[in-house]
Amino acid sequence: MIKTDILIIGAGPTGLFAVFEAGLLKLKCHLIDALPQPGGQCAEIYPKKPIYDIPGFPEVLAGDLVDNLLEQIKPFDPGFTLGERAQDIEKQDDGSFIVTTNKRTKHHAPIIAIAGGLGSFEPRKPMIDNLKAFEDKGVEYIIRDPEVYRNKKVVIAGGGDSALDWSIFLSDVANEVTLVHRRNEFRGALDSVEKVQELKNLGKINLITPAEVIEVQGEDKLTGVTIKRGEEKINLSVDHFIPLFGLSPKLGPIADWGLEIEKNAIKVDNTLDYQTNIPGIYAIGDVNTYPGKLKLILCGFHEATLMCQSAYQRIFPDKRYVMKYTTVSGIDGFDGSRKEAEKAVVKAIQ
Amino acid sequence: MIKTDILIIGAGPTGLFAVFEAGLLKLKCHLIDALPQPGGQCAEIYPKKPIYDIPGFPEVLAGDLVDNLLEQIKPFDPGFTLGERAQDIEKQDDGSFIVTTNKRTKHHAPIIAIAGGLGSFEPRKPMIDNLKAFEDKGVEYIIRDPEVYRNKKVVIAGGGDSALDWSIFLSDVANEVTLVHRRNEFRGALDSVEKVQELKNLGKINLITPAEVIEVQGEDKLTGVTIKRGEEKINLSVDHFIPLFGLSPKLGPIADWGLEIEKNAIKVDNTLDYQTNIPGIYAIGDVNTYPGKLKLILCGFHEATLMCQSAYQRIFPDKRYVMKYTTVSGIDGFDGSRKEAEKAVVKAIQ
Ligand SMILES: Cc1cc2nc3c(=O)[nH]c(=O)nc-3n(C[C@H](O)[C@H](O)[C@H](O)COP(=O)(O)OP(=O)(O)OC[C@H]3O[C@@H](n4cnc5c(N)ncnc54)[C@H](O)[C@@H]3O)c2cc1C
Ligand SMILES: Cc1cc2nc3c(=O)[nH]c(=O)nc-3n(C[C@H](O)[C@H](O)[C@H](O)COP(=O)(O)OP(=O)(O)OC[C@H]3O[C@@H](n4cnc5c(N)ncnc54)[C@H](O)[C@@H]3O)c2cc1C
Repeated sequence: MIKTDILIIGAGPTGLFAVFEAGLLKLKCHLIDALPQPGGQCAEIYPKKPIYDIPGFPEVLAGDLVDNLLEQIKPFDPGFTLGERAQDIEKQDDGSFIVTTNKRTKHHAPIIAIAGGLGSFEPRKPMIDNLKAFEDKGVEYIIRDPEVYRNKKVVIAGGGDSALDWSIFLSDVANEVTLVHRRNEFRGALDSVEKVQELKNLGKINLITPAEVIEVQGEDKLTGVTIKRGEEKINLSVDHFIPLFGLSPKLGPIADWGLEIEKNAIKVDNTLDYQTNIPGIYAIGDVNTYPGKLKLILCGFHEATLMCQSAYQRIFPDKRYVMKYTTVSGIDGFDGSRKEAEKAVVKAIQ
Repeated sequence: MIKTDILIIGAGPTGLFAVFEAGLLKLKCHLIDALPQPGGQCAEIYPKKPIYDIPGFPEVLAGDLVDNLLEQIKPFDPGFTLGERAQDIEKQDDGSFIVTTNKRTKHHAPIIAIAGGLGSFEPRKPMIDNLKAFEDKGVEYIIRDPEVYRNKKVVIAGGGDSALDWSIFLSDVANEVTLVHRRNEFRGALDSVEKVQELKNLGKINLITPAEVIEVQGEDKLTGVTIKRGEEKINLSVDHFIPLFGLSPKLGPIADWGLEIEKNAIKVDNTLDYQTNIPGIYAIGDVNTYPGKLKLILCGFHEATLMCQSAYQRIFPDKRYVMKYTTVSGIDGFDGSRKEAEKAVVKAIQ
């Protein structure tokens, strides 16, 4: 059982920044995310695109924003359960909660902050009859650890940035990379399209278009796929089939936790602390709704901050927290680190 | 008469970021600030100190944050009335407002956003009988343009960072710089204290401590001051006397505009749009109060953003604004500039 002060569901920008604000209040956080990496939409959907409306950044790549947030929260040493979906919640007699993931990892905390964005990112899957039987046995929808593919035969399907970028990356790792797409045209960054063209010309990527994987074969593990191009059927012996058709967010199991839902989002009390109808459960960032709500990153930051104050009061009803400016008090990391402004001196001039 | 869409009172971080959010909605802004430079508390009180809780910045100097914000809002070309205090407000028949400063500059706008922080920064003044008679005639409490002092004789009074830093700066500009302080000890950055010591040793700064300026003399313009050190009285002939005893914020005239005030701050409707009890007047950032309010920069950013949406609806009651992500739509500056993410291409690979 993982124990923490605030259990954050969703490691997007909002959930990440909540770790920082909680840390200032000496509260520890643990984050659960269905994706294998933190950063939410920024990391998964548009890491290489610029955002222009993060205050103080005339321009910042979404991926860099996530890296900066990770750096900022480092002193507060958050725990992570990645690649798992928060599934069930049980309220304990003392008012605390136990949250269990789809992989049965259990987490216990007095405060739950749902920062689930548009929902848990779930892969879009191709319609192939027995595909499910090979999931995690050669069929993967998300690449967690590229080393898994070293010296293996890999088929990637898809026509967007993920398919292009992973084909490029794995062409150096895998023994054989085949890229299959329904069309001849790919949609992605010009760089990536050109790079794939180049690797194809060098024979380092095997390109089959316009085509589709229509069958998968194997016993315990995947051993082959069948690809259909026009009337032609191509049988390939492969170790891995990776359909990269994008991820689509689903509010999923959280929708059944007894929370008030409106427009596919969780209603919160924005007049005070972004708490849901269940005391002790907050919802912050894209996942919540209230009058005038804007699904913007900077709004998630504010909501996370006010939420942490309220959580502190819930955990320590008798303590009176006096807000201090970070500039004045510095940052005391849970790892013993300390950041602080250079102190003024009082010194005679003779 | 200066005309604009949103008249922002206070050019601190909150007011500055409001220009950006308004700009995204194609609304023009003009800012009034009592200080000679934008940036509010960050620029005036702690420009060289690090802030640790701006989301996405593990550490940023307050002055750099202001510079970044100015860079970010540049495409939206805001107007500035600096060094003037917003004094009077008159509601017009059409619901718009005219705001007049202490220097009688008039501004006309349908929307007022008060981003006045802790109030208009007013200098602390030494108690010298006829001091007022020489204000702007040789006596200045804020240095607006250092060139005014070129080849002049200057007395600076004070023992903090401003007094130290301006003594250093002006020692290269003025003909003669005298620094007077009640104590022998100065309080400031170690660098600055050491630099003043060095300049004193070189004879470039004339140091008189522990001492006070007790009299000022002149006809139309200041011509001399009397300094008291113990029992000794020193008469100096000078062109300028600059007491730098710090600025203290005063809500000031805004307190009489008919707005609901609580704990020296303006009450706003945080359930929706941070509007005050007077429709069309909003209050954002440190200047406002609502249940759970935190006087933090990141909260001002959020409040500014929601406020601009509401202002847009007030100005264009019939238009329906659909929020667009900056990443997706880019930024169209009022100056004709355009920022945008590199577009994806759709391209065949052969
Ligand atoms: C193309 C694009 C451009 C954008 N441009 C901008 C922009 O310019 N400015 C701006 O402010 N915003 C922009 N946005 C929106 C911005 O990305 C979101 O507002 C932001 O990501 C919300 O952050 P979040 O942390 O609330 O949620 P998310 O980033 O959505 O993160 C939520 C995380 O929670 C996880 N999760 C959800 N449910 C579960 C569960 N049950 N178990 C485990 N994990 C779960 C998800 O997997 C996800 O990783 C853009 C979005 C897109 C798609
Ligand atoms: C030493 C110190 C350290 C701090 N550290 C942090 C930190 O680590 N993190 C954090 O989030 N915050 C910190 N703060 C607080 C932060 O600076 C404020 O929250 C922030 O400046 C508020 O921004 P604002 O734009 O709302 O108001 P301000 O920055 O106060 O700006 C308001 C401006 O309005 C002007 N004004 C007011 N009334 C009038 C008028 N009638 N006419 C003309 N002009 C007017 C003022 O002159 C001023 O320039 C710190 C503050 C101090 C003093």
